[in-house]
Amino acid sequence: MLETILKHRSIRKYKNTAIPDNVLNDILNSAVRASNTGNMQVYSIVVTKNEDIKKQLWESHFKQDMVNQAPVILTFCADINRFNKWCEQNNTEPAYDNFLWFYNATIDATIAAQNASLAAEHHGLGICYLGTTTYMASKIISILNLPKGVVPVTTIVVGYPDQQPELTDRLPINAVVHHEKYKDYSPEDIKKLHNEKDNSEETKQLIEQNKTENLAQIFTEKRYVKKDNLFFSQSFLDVLKEQGFMNNK
Amino acid sequence: MLETILKHRSIRKYKNTAIPDNVLNDILNSAVRASNTGNMQVYSIVVTKNEDIKKQLWESHFKQDMVNQAPVILTFCADINRFNKWCEQNNTEPAYDNFLWFYNATIDATIAAQNASLAAEHHGLGICYLGTTTYMASKIISILNLPKGVVPVTTIVVGYPDQQPELTDRLPINAVVHHEKYKDYSPEDIKKLHNEKDNSEETKQLIEQNKTENLAQIFTEKRYVKKDNLFFSQSFLDVLKEQGFMNNK
Repeated sequence: MLETILKHRSIRKYKNTAIPDNVLNDILNSAVRASNTGNMQVYSIVVTKNEDIKKQLWESHFKQDMVNQAPVILTFCADINRFNKWCEQNNTEPAYDNFLWFYNATIDATIAAQNASLAAEHHGLGICYLGTTTYMASKIISILNLPKGVVPVTTIVVGYPDQQPELTDRLPINAVVHHEKYKDYSPEDIKKLHNEKDNSEETKQLIEQNKTENLAQIFTEKRYVKKDNLFFSQSFLDVLKEQGFMNNK
Repeated sequence: MLETILKHRSIRKYKNTAIPDNVLNDILNSAVRASNTGNMQVYSIVVTKNEDIKKQLWESHFKQDMVNQAPVILTFCADINRFNKWCEQNNTEPAYDNFLWFYNATIDATIAAQNASLAAEHHGLGICYLGTTTYMASKIISILNLPKGVVPVTTIVVGYPDQQPELTDRLPINAVVHHEKYKDYSPEDIKKLHNEKDNSEETKQLIEQNKTENLAQIFTEKRYVKKDNLFFSQSFLDVLKEQGFMNNK
């Protein structure tokens, strides 16, 4: 258990090997055993194996090769559609078309996704989360026929690894853990906690490749730039509205 | 691994037994090994053991006894504060004070929380997620001294179980799993998928206790009512604004 968690690497290159049905069933059954708000299960999982649909998803996920390579794509969605229909058939008015329930459903879908990921890794499979799910939510909604009340939250690609990447670095544990209350960071704290990462061989190479002064500038100027962050913030909020999750008054 | 996932029960009654440091370290180290956006680790974990602070958290979490009983409370937060400070010290302007990054950080914090939960359960501990975290975010921010750029996402209580609840029911797996694309539900589908749950002995007792016509009405009229859903949607959106995550233009 701990070994599976501690040796996790995101896998970005996959073999062309199908996942046996019993293994996929274990993954899906693990997903639905996760904690969820009020046991209402306000999420859905779309399992995509079809090559044509995968190709459409690949286009949406910024044409990352792993989306075409991996035999199975799991899209985890916030879903009040099913619960709404059940309420309406039971002579009562649901009131879950608001931000609170989008957020509850997001947390539930994500916990389910991590259970699925660990179950997959337990079976020797590799996974990678796709952050592009929210960037391209509108396209994914169209590809997967998601009705009103359903929004894609995150995606994992699943398959047999065709690479063995090293464990990625992390900041020292006390960079993210606070005891009793939050202790804000002094400039010295920040420098100390980031020191190893800022000065590693890998970082030095990245800085040379990207022609920046330091690692932070790679994030702000190359990887996650202001213009895109604002664009995708707005487009995702628009999707929430269109899919009926922003009736907050 | 799968056994730990498949036998998960939320624990709501705890023994008065401390968690050894090495076990807590395993839990926290498991949390930080989780996948996260761009390896930016834009989340924080506040570990609360102090009885006075726990009592304040208990008040915020609707006075649920388990918050006082469990020896450790872990509050998982979306956190761009540390990353922002690092960027500023490196002569570059961060642009993560928007909804996209609040959402990325939410997913990352939640994946970390589920790793922590499974590591705890692996060690024989019980956990329970507290959905009240978002309801009472403003109070929790004040109790835990969370600065601008930090918002509590979810909380788990962790401790040795003082109860052995049965496995909770779930809808049939095909209620939440869709193949290739989303297949919307007919009235007959809804009826069939909910049939067992709607008519179980447990449900019959709940309906009698709550004096409603059916299970759905317990959710809409008793547990998660419209007035509260709207109130907490708005208050959480206000918190996002106050904490500096809604600069989307």
